Amino acid sequence: MTILKKSDICKKYSMYTRKERNTPEEKPTRTELSTLGEFGLIDRLSKSLTIKHAGTVKGIGDDAAVINTGDNLLLLSTDLLLEGVHFDLTYMPLKHLGYKAAVVNISDIAAMNGVPKQMTVSIAVSNRFSIEAIEELYRGIHMACDKYNVDLVGGDTSSSVSGLLISITITGEAASNEIVYRNGAKEGDLICVTGDLGGAYAGLLILEREKQVYKANPNMQPELNGFEYVLGRQLKPEARTDLRNIFKELTLIPTSMIDISDGLASEVLHICHQSNTGCRIYEEKIPIDEETKRLALEFNIIPTVCTLSGGEDYELLFTIKQTDYEKIITVPEITVIGYITASSDGQKLITPDGHLVKLTAQGWDAFISKP
Amino acid sequence: MTILKKSDICKKYSMYTRKERNTPEEKPTRTELSTLGEFGLIDRLSKSLTIKHAGTVKGIGDDAAVINTGDNLLLLSTDLLLEGVHFDLTYMPLKHLGYKAAVVNISDIAAMNGVPKQMTVSIAVSNRFSIEAIEELYRGIHMACDKYNVDLVGGDTSSSVSGLLISITITGEAASNEIVYRNGAKEGDLICVTGDLGGAYAGLLILEREKQVYKANPNMQPELNGFEYVLGRQLKPEARTDLRNIFKELTLIPTSMIDISDGLASEVLHICHQSNTGCRIYEEKIPIDEETKRLALEFNIIPTVCTLSGGEDYELLFTIKQTDYEKIITVPEITVIGYITASSDGQKLITPDGHLVKLTAQGWDAFISKP
Repeated sequence: MTILKKSDICKKYSMYTRKERNTPEEKPTRTELSTLGEFGLIDRLSKSLTIKHAGTVKGIGDDAAVINTGDNLLLLSTDLLLEGVHFDLTYMPLKHLGYKAAVVNISDIAAMNGVPKQMTVSIAVSNRFSIEAIEELYRGIHMACDKYNVDLVGGDTSSSVSGLLISITITGEAASNEIVYRNGAKEGDLICVTGDLGGAYAGLLILEREKQVYKANPNMQPELNGFEYVLGRQLKPEARTDLRNIFKELTLIPTSMIDISDGLASEVLHICHQSNTGCRIYEEKIPIDEETKRLALEFNIIPTVCTLSGGEDYELLFTIKQTDYEKIITVPEITVIGYITASSDGQKLITPDGHLVKLTAQGWDAFISKP
Repeated sequence: MTILKKSDICKKYSMYTRKERNTPEEKPTRTELSTLGEFGLIDRLSKSLTIKHAGTVKGIGDDAAVINTGDNLLLLSTDLLLEGVHFDLTYMPLKHLGYKAAVVNISDIAAMNGVPKQMTVSIAVSNRFSIEAIEELYRGIHMACDKYNVDLVGGDTSSSVSGLLISITITGEAASNEIVYRNGAKEGDLICVTGDLGGAYAGLLILEREKQVYKANPNMQPELNGFEYVLGRQLKPEARTDLRNIFKELTLIPTSMIDISDGLASEVLHICHQSNTGCRIYEEKIPIDEETKRLALEFNIIPTVCTLSGGEDYELLFTIKQTDYEKIITVPEITVIGYITASSDGQKLITPDGHLVKLTAQGWDAFISKP
């Protein structure tokens, strides 16, 4: 009887030649994931993709895929959240986690100027979690679905070897002339953000500090008083689905849009990269809440750094034509923070004293654990 | 300054009363996940759901959700695969794993009698995996997308604390009069399956045996010769998207359908449960390949047990009206294995010697690791 090697299994099923053996141990070339980062990996994995269906209007590379299903366009987006990478159950109550996990996805639909519709939720849980704990997680998901008028239509549940994992996919809807992509910004467009930024990161700083205090001495109780706003930004973020209605009232369609999940700098660079433009962001125009400012200074961090690199604010970043400026000037939810330039001008932050600083994305990368 | 407890974080953000603290450690009631199983958990988590959108035709409880988007209906399904729970990289090459992960989802669309269209793929990987390893995984996914004409339109990538995780969501399309649900079986309908069953489980038995041999003595090489068919069933399953075309040619719409992922018994019970019927399955009619039979006997397992409880065959189980029997009689892909009865008659297997045995789902549960 011929004795087969493991690699021969591959050969037999016509997917491999012997040289293509692919277990991590056997590969001749090994490039560490950390050398690429998340966006580099996505680029590398999607570079050879071709679109087969005429209905696939937009594939990888925006907040959501866009699919033509008939009358309207369908938006499709998905997010993966892992314990120990994206959340820490030491300070994140399960109901909040469920709520946030849903909101993160709803925000992706808001970032396309769509209406969120249906959601699937898959979870993997270790036996560390009781059924009551899982129900608590789903209570948060249901709360978000109720608030944002989304139907939970399916999912998958599984055990995990360790920890909790949540994978959510969401659909949305919009007319084709309403959808806003990342790649539509043009030279001269104004760059706008909703709400205020950096709060979610400031909230995380507090929670992390109190966790360290607790670890050092479990009898110490966390000091969370006076930080209500930033803690709320971190623990119970909301998606800006209200902007779609505001845009409708203003008869305004942004030229490009993205939600702020990884930090303002990273998102501005996404818009510039995909629209092939440069930009100027006025540091002093970036909207920051007073509590965020106070907290940042307490941690010896320049407040704008929280906004540029912090992430998780789930506000919207968008660009509008200069001729639409009059429409937004009286809208309190919207702040103009800069403008789009030619690509050759680069992507720059203008400091309060007028210096130009290159914008770099130091936002937390999903391949590096959060601070 | 008031000192807050951890539970006060919850109170502050209006989602909790003090009594509702929800970390696993703090819950007053603790029910173990193992007491419910996957389907029990899904039932419990989805029991209070109400549907908000008229476009949501079908939510939780079938192979895919059904969404009315205009001309046609959109199908939406999602599956989660975890290392150590759903797959073992000791014998599952990454390219095969990617292929299989995609096929599992495509099979869900086939089970609704739909055409698979778009797919999102989210992965979480530990730094144990190199970029080349991830690319290998995606090569398998791309191969399946090419073969089944599916567009990969998005996803999410993340690091994991340990192991590999794949979460795939797929869309499909079908006209409303084409979609086949699990709940349409009627008394007197014939129960049919495609292909042959139990092979994937037989393949798993071989791979597990060789793994144990390898663990006992790493110098031993696996003996895989002569098991090509069952290994292929386990390592490179295919989705039965061909049946949709066969049904079209036969001008036949099944009354109910499901794909066989958890074992024939479990799937028959799903159909009966959702259609509120009983059934009779003739044990000797269940199609089994000769290699599967030989292997099962070598492992001292009754071959039909592999089909009833094995799972992962990704064949289709469906019911048709008796009046449609003439249409399928000459189709080699289809075997009639029994018929639907009134619910009060129960769900029974008829053994070759004419005994009636209660059908029970002993298929592997995602909450119990595979053998």
